[in-house]
Amino acid sequence: MADQNSGSHSGGEFDIIAKYFRPLSKGSDGALGLLDDAAILDVPDGQSLIVTTDAVVAGVHFLESLSPEDIAHKVVGVNLSDLAAMGAIPKAVFLAAQFTSDLSTDWISAFANGLQSALKPSGAVLMGGDTVSTPGPMAFTITALGHAPKGRALHRANAKPGDVVFTTGTIGDGALGLAMLLGEVKDLSSEHAAHLARRYARPEPRWTLGAELLKTGLTVAAVDVSDGLVADIRHICEASNVDAVIEAEQVPVSEAARAVLEMKPELFNTVLTGGDDYELVFTAPQDSVADIESMGEAQGLQITAIGRIEEPGTLGQGRIAVVDAHGIPLELGAGGYQHL
Amino acid sequence: MADQNSGSHSGGEFDIIAKYFRPLSKGSDGALGLLDDAAILDVPDGQSLIVTTDAVVAGVHFLESLSPEDIAHKVVGVNLSDLAAMGAIPKAVFLAAQFTSDLSTDWISAFANGLQSALKPSGAVLMGGDTVSTPGPMAFTITALGHAPKGRALHRANAKPGDVVFTTGTIGDGALGLAMLLGEVKDLSSEHAAHLARRYARPEPRWTLGAELLKTGLTVAAVDVSDGLVADIRHICEASNVDAVIEAEQVPVSEAARAVLEMKPELFNTVLTGGDDYELVFTAPQDSVADIESMGEAQGLQITAIGRIEEPGTLGQGRIAVVDAHGIPLELGAGGYQHL
Repeated sequence: MADQNSGSHSGGEFDIIAKYFRPLSKGSDGALGLLDDAAILDVPDGQSLIVTTDAVVAGVHFLESLSPEDIAHKVVGVNLSDLAAMGAIPKAVFLAAQFTSDLSTDWISAFANGLQSALKPSGAVLMGGDTVSTPGPMAFTITALGHAPKGRALHRANAKPGDVVFTTGTIGDGALGLAMLLGEVKDLSSEHAAHLARRYARPEPRWTLGAELLKTGLTVAAVDVSDGLVADIRHICEASNVDAVIEAEQVPVSEAARAVLEMKPELFNTVLTGGDDYELVFTAPQDSVADIESMGEAQGLQITAIGRIEEPGTLGQGRIAVVDAHGIPLELGAGGYQHL
Repeated sequence: MADQNSGSHSGGEFDIIAKYFRPLSKGSDGALGLLDDAAILDVPDGQSLIVTTDAVVAGVHFLESLSPEDIAHKVVGVNLSDLAAMGAIPKAVFLAAQFTSDLSTDWISAFANGLQSALKPSGAVLMGGDTVSTPGPMAFTITALGHAPKGRALHRANAKPGDVVFTTGTIGDGALGLAMLLGEVKDLSSEHAAHLARRYARPEPRWTLGAELLKTGLTVAAVDVSDGLVADIRHICEASNVDAVIEAEQVPVSEAARAVLEMKPELFNTVLTGGDDYELVFTAPQDSVADIESMGEAQGLQITAIGRIEEPGTLGQGRIAVVDAHGIPLELGAGGYQHL
């Protein structure tokens, strides 16, 4: 973290690291107090290291109007969510922060506090990184490292015809929250508005469930819902060479989302394709449904069966259909069949 | 790598990954073809994982006028150089690329080629990452992972009074190359101009020497020259609580740099403080000088003794002096005493 390239030089840079970020490395000897060129990480015998990198850019991946704490939660959440989809337990993050010069030290302090509270539930530690200046927009890249038992990570390619498709939590809150913050959804109760705003800004990565699913030894394909429920299930279908049928009425939505849909039913398409949910969608064999439901109860986490995996070729090139109560496929528009 | 956040969605994104970046993951099963949420890395028994992250922003850390191949070499080089300073052997990199929409696929293809040629000497593999769009400037973050024997990494805190200070290669080419590309240095022969431009754009990280130094079992403090020779030696002094005296006449400069200094002797300050060299500066006990010189010969790498480590307090708060042939400290200006 202490290593800067030319152009990022500023007397204040080392101070910022020392004051705001070094406290987040506590408990990790290998972080070397963020003072050395790199950090040292020992991986326990029998464990593989699982590594993911995600970048978020202001105005592209998050609203610049979000609070610094929310932005920190977002960048941590999207990364730990990728570890969750592999069944890995988060251990360390490395942060490359591109700060604009207009950001105050109060802002940076609040951002660091947000990082700390976002990391805390998992126990992952900030082990290093880089702080550089940018003419804008601000952007943050996190590389997150986790552990999973060797040879046991959950893969997207594990889905088989006959499997059930499950999702954690509720779907659509992220995208509806964004729509609300952009002024496209109005007249919500303050409670519902707060719920959607929070769900958009502060993903709750489901790594506890991911790790638990891995422990079962079941053949599970998992993905986190970042691109949108339909697109992300399609990632599983493509990697596994299977198709999928999702039952629209089974897709779990929050009370706040339901309130939005009563006003604007057309936004159900946004629920299915909008993304930013960071829930875990996964497939598991039919005979494991009871086990998985009790796993959810034990964790206090809603888990809902929303569909089934079919033989490849059943649904054509799209590989996925969302059907209504009569089995009729919904028209999802472009979002359902390719990236927006 | 296949995981994008909302806002980065584009049909072309998966194509770009598949076409240009997937070939760089060849040879790594754990990269999962860049198709899954994260990559899987096994660390051999007895090895620690060494991890570093560096971000570079166009116009801040590199000239936007550099070729895509050069930019790729720069972002890889600055990261592998941090691994070198720990004595680690590079194994994998994760790339978060923030591309502006004006970049052509030809540009991205050339950038990927540059990545491949920059990674090749070390055998490190692209194992994952993220490609996102940005309104600009383009920016790249690499997280580099390497291996070093457990408990054996080189630390900045290892320097002791009486140690000799060494540097690899030549110092100042990076900063003089930048000055030349900015039009501040003119009238160089085309050969010298090409040398400085190349040294600025394409760092040659000294990880082979770092790993060799680690093998010797000597107590070595090492740092890569990114902030500038003086500032980076100061990092060692601060971490080790020692002072350092550097002999100006011993600092090795290239023929091209010498040609610049004949025209503009005042730029010797830039040589000492300019940075962007990505050479390795390290300390080792006096009785190891012969061993280290023969190590350099064996690797075909110039290694020069440039100074010595002193007891703390010898040189006041600055901790470091660069002295002329008469032992008189040079006036380095702000660059010598704090970050620019």
